[in-house]
Amino acid sequence: MSGRLRLGIAGLGTVGVGVIKIIRREAQMLTARTGVEITISAVSARTRDKDRGVSLSGYDWEDDPVKLATREDVDVFVELMGGSDGPAKAATEAALKAGKDVVTANKAMLAVHGQALAELAEAQGRVIRYEAAVAGGIPVVKALTEGLAGNAITRVMGVMNGTCNYILTRMESAGLPYEEVFEEANQLGYLEADPELDVGGIDAGHKLSLLAAVAFGTRVAFDDMELEGIGRLTIEDIRAAADMGYRIKLLGVARMTGRGLEQRMSPCLVPMTSPLGQLEGGTNMVVLEGNAVERIVLRGPGAGEGPTASAVMGDVCDIARGLRIPVFGQKAETLVAAVPAKSVTPAAYYLRMTLQDKPGALAKVATVLGEAGVSIHRMRQYDHEGGGAPVLIVTHQTDRQSLDVALSAMDKTGVVETRPVAIRIEEV
Amino acid sequence: MSGRLRLGIAGLGTVGVGVIKIIRREAQMLTARTGVEITISAVSARTRDKDRGVSLSGYDWEDDPVKLATREDVDVFVELMGGSDGPAKAATEAALKAGKDVVTANKAMLAVHGQALAELAEAQGRVIRYEAAVAGGIPVVKALTEGLAGNAITRVMGVMNGTCNYILTRMESAGLPYEEVFEEANQLGYLEADPELDVGGIDAGHKLSLLAAVAFGTRVAFDDMELEGIGRLTIEDIRAAADMGYRIKLLGVARMTGRGLEQRMSPCLVPMTSPLGQLEGGTNMVVLEGNAVERIVLRGPGAGEGPTASAVMGDVCDIARGLRIPVFGQKAETLVAAVPAKSVTPAAYYLRMTLQDKPGALAKVATVLGEAGVSIHRMRQYDHEGGGAPVLIVTHQTDRQSLDVALSAMDKTGVVETRPVAIRIEEV
Repeated sequence: MSGRLRLGIAGLGTVGVGVIKIIRREAQMLTARTGVEITISAVSARTRDKDRGVSLSGYDWEDDPVKLATREDVDVFVELMGGSDGPAKAATEAALKAGKDVVTANKAMLAVHGQALAELAEAQGRVIRYEAAVAGGIPVVKALTEGLAGNAITRVMGVMNGTCNYILTRMESAGLPYEEVFEEANQLGYLEADPELDVGGIDAGHKLSLLAAVAFGTRVAFDDMELEGIGRLTIEDIRAAADMGYRIKLLGVARMTGRGLEQRMSPCLVPMTSPLGQLEGGTNMVVLEGNAVERIVLRGPGAGEGPTASAVMGDVCDIARGLRIPVFGQKAETLVAAVPAKSVTPAAYYLRMTLQDKPGALAKVATVLGEAGVSIHRMRQYDHEGGGAPVLIVTHQTDRQSLDVALSAMDKTGVVETRPVAIRIEEV
Repeated sequence: MSGRLRLGIAGLGTVGVGVIKIIRREAQMLTARTGVEITISAVSARTRDKDRGVSLSGYDWEDDPVKLATREDVDVFVELMGGSDGPAKAATEAALKAGKDVVTANKAMLAVHGQALAELAEAQGRVIRYEAAVAGGIPVVKALTEGLAGNAITRVMGVMNGTCNYILTRMESAGLPYEEVFEEANQLGYLEADPELDVGGIDAGHKLSLLAAVAFGTRVAFDDMELEGIGRLTIEDIRAAADMGYRIKLLGVARMTGRGLEQRMSPCLVPMTSPLGQLEGGTNMVVLEGNAVERIVLRGPGAGEGPTASAVMGDVCDIARGLRIPVFGQKAETLVAAVPAKSVTPAAYYLRMTLQDKPGALAKVATVLGEAGVSIHRMRQYDHEGGGAPVLIVTHQTDRQSLDVALSAMDKTGVVETRPVAIRIEEV
């Protein structure tokens, strides 16, 4: 390398352009910090002729990212194309096999192929860095992998999809239904080409699966994650939750339990006054809990040209400085396959239902909950004109199984108009 | 080193004990993560016979920390004694000269001797790591030095003295005067032996000076910091600030301006609804702003056995993993001596004063402010019975010089009963 670190950048969307801008603007500063000159040898993207607002002169062009990734004059392959398979994966593998380090923002690829890619990288003596894949500009992979390396991690939580958080915040502040705000977000260009990646919790789930692997020394296991999107949340639930002092967030939670690794990305209630509850708009937040550090909260922009490019460049600078650690913080071969444990940690639940307006309805519901061992912490019945009576219940801590028993039994009471909405209340 | 990293720990207070506990408890995890066995060869403290709640058997004892620091069987000298000079400095220098790496929690030593120690370390090819010196368990040195290495940092802010934040929070919540809460904090053991280190802002100032050096590539310049403690804050100011929607925090701000490096550690008003405004008790918060990342907020415990030991162990693990960078993020010889710039960035100010109860008093004050070029954003005059009339003013942005001119002129109007209190409102 001898005083120079030469990049090949594949993918020239906002992030790629942001990286080029930083390298052009901050050349001197980057050299002062890393001791080497960081340069770009070649770039690649789907379309060559397009005004990207940054000059590409001085960089070779490659149509084929695999060719880019394996060029002699590339030390680090910067993969910013996205997609779990296809060109991104092919080029990443080619880069590693050719002895290049890889910096990527591709959460999908690592969530699906992380173990195999980590093994390949380590066999080749190379690193894969992915700070930009998780929570945008927040250096959370670094904080977890390095900063908290002295901790047995007890829980990782995060709001890591800015689009979902924008939608939920906007539903509450503007009092609009999901469909309408979804359409707004679409118009604003906030949604992925496949919106299910965002609102289905998949994108955020990918991110959580990477943090869980680092936190618990386990193989990435995205397939084992409990995944639930925000598409079924109603403005009624958002309002009712607020009335009880909560906000609804698409919250990721990973925790090692006595029965295995629990990974959930799902709507949860969190106290309105908690840092997570106060998170608004596109901002991301990650909470890291360890047996020594107690709790660290990191907050920052979850997307965007500058923040994501900042994360990419943090990784590039680490490589330039010779900072090299295994992909998931310990050798890939030592990562264990965790037993998946679904919803084993007890929690309080929020229940919303509409009861038929007849005597004893509420008593029946309370009885059914009690018989299943679910005790009621708070309850509110609201005014209503005609139709059923809206009822909110916050339970004490219960396991999901008991709750499901109670919910099934409720169906059979004949007093509940529609199956109750049940949302977990995460203790934060 | 061959598969082992051997520590010598000097100082067995809460942090030292915390480090020993982690090493004993997490041996297997630490080896999995770092690839080496982390062991303790010897320890040192002022008193040998004392129950510290952790077994020291298996570790050699040294009375003299210099002797500990230079032992053949020590790879890393862990300095947890504190104090800017004396044994801490002597042992740190001895360790570096003997070719040992150093991990320290000693902000005072680095704030005063950072440049010389960094030069010595780099001449010896050794590192000094000090994550535990700044903001307890929050991995902020790492986030700034490594994670945000691609950013020209524009501002660093922080609430980094938990004791001061506890005192201010408690004054507000319990409605107690400073002196009383200070005494409470003292009884609770929250204060340093010399309380001025805490309430005078010195400890927090030390921390800020280290972050500023990393952020701006400048030599640590603690002596150039504007320093003001919390001792003159009154419950009246805390209440009045709250009434205007603000909280008072001992806030550090470092910023590179066109006229030089601005470093302030002083009471500031911040909006009650901002993350900084909502920070309560002993928790620390650091805000890092860069030209790419926009803004990252880090929050966590600022002190205590576990959190501070977590930070020490993060540094130890980095060394075990072979992660080595210059002390302040770039070679010590390339750090420049910044021109100190005092309060050059304009700000809004909060003014509290008592006016004599006679016609035209308020008009005189307003005129004096106007003549000095300070315009009024908001003003409140309160009910009063006898005596003077309490008046609060929030100004528009102004430079400190104009404000000082106005404050001097106010004295001469003869309508202000005591010199007004003026507190900066930091835009956060």
